[in-house]
Amino acid sequence: MLKQDRWLLPEGIEEVFPEESERIEYLRRKVLDLFASWGYRMVIPPIIEFLDSLLVGTGYDLDLQTFKLIDQISGRMMGIRADMTPQVARIDARTARGDRPARLCYLGTVLHTQSDHLEKTRAPMQVGAELYGHAGNASDIEIIRLVLEMLAVMGIAEVHLDLGHVGIYRGLAQQAGLDAGQEAELFAILQRKDRTELVEFLETAGVAGVMAERLLALLDLNGPYAILADARRRLGEAGEFVASALADLDAIAACLGRLFPALPVNFDLAELRGYHYQTGVVFAAFVPGYGREIARGGRYDEIGKVFGRARPATGFSADLRVLARLAGTDGRGAAASAIFAPVADDPDLHEIIRDLRAAGKTVVQELPGQTENAQAMGCQSELRKLGSEWKIVGLDPR
Amino acid sequence: MLKQDRWLLPEGIEEVFPEESERIEYLRRKVLDLFASWGYRMVIPPIIEFLDSLLVGTGYDLDLQTFKLIDQISGRMMGIRADMTPQVARIDARTARGDRPARLCYLGTVLHTQSDHLEKTRAPMQVGAELYGHAGNASDIEIIRLVLEMLAVMGIAEVHLDLGHVGIYRGLAQQAGLDAGQEAELFAILQRKDRTELVEFLETAGVAGVMAERLLALLDLNGPYAILADARRRLGEAGEFVASALADLDAIAACLGRLFPALPVNFDLAELRGYHYQTGVVFAAFVPGYGREIARGGRYDEIGKVFGRARPATGFSADLRVLARLAGTDGRGAAASAIFAPVADDPDLHEIIRDLRAAGKTVVQELPGQTENAQAMGCQSELRKLGSEWKIVGLDPR
Repeated sequence: MLKQDRWLLPEGIEEVFPEESERIEYLRRKVLDLFASWGYRMVIPPIIEFLDSLLVGTGYDLDLQTFKLIDQISGRMMGIRADMTPQVARIDARTARGDRPARLCYLGTVLHTQSDHLEKTRAPMQVGAELYGHAGNASDIEIIRLVLEMLAVMGIAEVHLDLGHVGIYRGLAQQAGLDAGQEAELFAILQRKDRTELVEFLETAGVAGVMAERLLALLDLNGPYAILADARRRLGEAGEFVASALADLDAIAACLGRLFPALPVNFDLAELRGYHYQTGVVFAAFVPGYGREIARGGRYDEIGKVFGRARPATGFSADLRVLARLAGTDGRGAAASAIFAPVADDPDLHEIIRDLRAAGKTVVQELPGQTENAQAMGCQSELRKLGSEWKIVGLDPR
Repeated sequence: MLKQDRWLLPEGIEEVFPEESERIEYLRRKVLDLFASWGYRMVIPPIIEFLDSLLVGTGYDLDLQTFKLIDQISGRMMGIRADMTPQVARIDARTARGDRPARLCYLGTVLHTQSDHLEKTRAPMQVGAELYGHAGNASDIEIIRLVLEMLAVMGIAEVHLDLGHVGIYRGLAQQAGLDAGQEAELFAILQRKDRTELVEFLETAGVAGVMAERLLALLDLNGPYAILADARRRLGEAGEFVASALADLDAIAACLGRLFPALPVNFDLAELRGYHYQTGVVFAAFVPGYGREIARGGRYDEIGKVFGRARPATGFSADLRVLARLAGTDGRGAAASAIFAPVADDPDLHEIIRDLRAAGKTVVQELPGQTENAQAMGCQSELRKLGSEWKIVGLDPR
C-alpha cells in the first residue's frame, strides 16, 4: 500500500477538521439546550447491538443499510445502528412508567452501507427528539414546532414544510386487498411517483374501479392547503380510517397556520417517508438550494410492540452536519481569539494564564525552541511583560 | 426470539439513560471548553476507516481489538476504530503546516472486540488531547498538566501519577540484541512483572551478564523520586539512549514537583503502556478505589511516519464515562428544575413559555387528555393563571 493511499477514506466517510468540528460542537450545544428547555431528556443508545434488537419492526430498507458484525463473545450477529429512532423507542418501552408521556432526545453518528444519491455521506450525525405516550395531534404539533424552533435557533431561514399521512395509503392498500409483498411494491412505486408504473401495477394486482381511482388520486393530491378539500372529495368515501387520517392532517394544518402564518406548507398524500415504521402523520422540512429534506419525522405507534409495549410515538430526526452547513455563520473556532503566551518561568505569568483560561479565554503557550511566533500560531494577541506587569497586547493582522 | 431477549444488549455494550447522559454531556462540555482554553482544536475522526489506515504502525494488540467489516462500495476491509490517537496523528500529518506545533483534541466512542478484565465496557467514550511538532519535555509537561487540570475541573480528587519511559526498555532491548519477536515477548513479560518468567526468557534468549542484570533491574525500579538515582546507578552505563531517557524523566519530575508539590508521583521503569506506539515518556493517572488508570498517555514520535510525515507527538486519553462516574455530583439533569405548563390556547401562555425556554428554563407542556400532573411529570413548579396573569407556582414535593 502506498503512503498516499493511507490518506484515503472510504467513500462517504469523512474526517472533520477543527473549524467545522467547532462549528458542529457549537450547534450541537444549541440544539441539545433547546431540546432540554422543552423537557426532552437526553439518552445515549449504543453504536452496536444484536441485529434482532436493532432491526425488529423496522423493515427491509434498514436491514440493507445496516453493517453486520460477529460478536466474538456471544457468537451472535450484531449490527451498527443505521437509525437511532428504533433504539430510542426501545429505551422508552423499557423505562416508561405508567402511561405518562415521555420526551427523549439523542445525538450520535449512524452508519449506512450505501450512500444516498442526494447525500453522499454514509455517516450522518443523527440528531432527533421523540415524544412517547400521546396519540393525539397535539404531540405531532409539538414535534413539528420543535423542528421549526431548532431550524430558527440555527439561523436556517426560508424553511418550508411537506405534510403527509401514511394512514391514507395504508387504508387504501388494505381496502384494495393487497398482500404484504404487493403493499411494499406499491409503496416503492408511490415513492417514485411513476403513474405509468402504478397503472400497470394496479392492472396486474387486479385492482380496478373506484379502488384503482383512489390509489391513482394519491399522485395528484400534492399541493397547498386546498388540496385537502380535494382529497376529502376524492377519498371521502374510502372508509373511516382514511377519513380520520384526512381529519388529522386538517387539524394539524389549521394549528400550524395559526402558529406560523408565514410558513409555506405543502401537502403530499403520496409522500411516505421513513423505513416503513411510520403509521400516521409524516412531515419533512426543506430549504431552497438543498435537494432533499433537512429534517423529517412523523408518527410511529407500533414500534414498541415488539419490545412488549406499544406506545403512541412521534418524533423527528436530522443530520447535524447538514444543518451545520446550512446554518448561520456564528460559532467560530476557539482559536479565533487566542492569546499567545511566551516561554517564561515566571509564576506571575502562570497565574495570569490560569485566570484567563478559567475565564474562558484561549491561551496558547509557546514551547521552548519553537520558531513560530504568535501570528503563525493563529493568535490575535499576546502576553508581553511591560515594566513589571504582564499585559495583553493586540497584534497587527498579517 | 422472545420479547424479553430483545432487551438484551451485547456484553460490555450499554445504553445510557437520561440522568447519566445529561451528566456526561455536562462534563463533556467542561472538558472540551478546558481543552479549547489551552488552544487545543477539536477534530472529529470517522468511526470506520479502511483497516490499513486504521492499524498502520499501531501493533498487534490494536488489530485484535478492532471489529472488521467489508465495505460494499470498494470491496475492501474496514475497521471500527478501537483507538482515536492514531486517527488524530494522521489528521495532524495531513494538515500540519511547516514545523509549527499543533494542538488537537477529540471525543468519541471507540469499540473493542473484547472487554478488559478490569473495565467491562467494550465501548469507551474516548476523550483526549494531542500535541504535535515539539520533541522536548515541555510538551510532555503541558500534556500532564492538562490531564491534572481536567481531573481537577471534574472534581476528581486524590489523584496520583505513574511515570515511566519506553526509551529505557527499548534501549536495553536493542543493546541485548533482541529481534522484534523477542522484544514483543519481553514487553509482555515486563507488563506482567513476572521475575521467574523474565529469568527464563533471558536464559533462552542467551542474554547474560550485565545485559541480563539491567533488564532484571527494570522490575525493581519502581517507587518514589529516589528510584531515579537508583536507576542512574544501575543503568547509567547502558548507553546514551538510556541515559537521555533517565534525564528526561528527571527533568519532568523536577518540573512537576515545582508545579504540583502535593502530587504523589510514582516511577515505574517496567511500565510500558499503550499499543506499542509509545516511544518516550509514558504516564498514567490513578485514584483510590478504581483498579486501573483513569487517564494515560505519553510520547509517540513515530506514528505519523507511515503517513509520510514523522512529527514528534505527545498526548493522553481517558474514558469520559469512567471519569463521569468518579466526578463530583454536579451536572444534574435539566428536568431537575422543570416547570409544568397546562394545556391552554392562550397566546399569553405561549409567549411566557417561549421566554422561559429562551432564558434556559425547562418548560414541559401538558398534552390534551394527559392524566399525569406536574409532579408525576417530574416538575418542581407549574405555570398557573392567577387573576389575569400567569405565574410560576412552586409545588410541594411528594
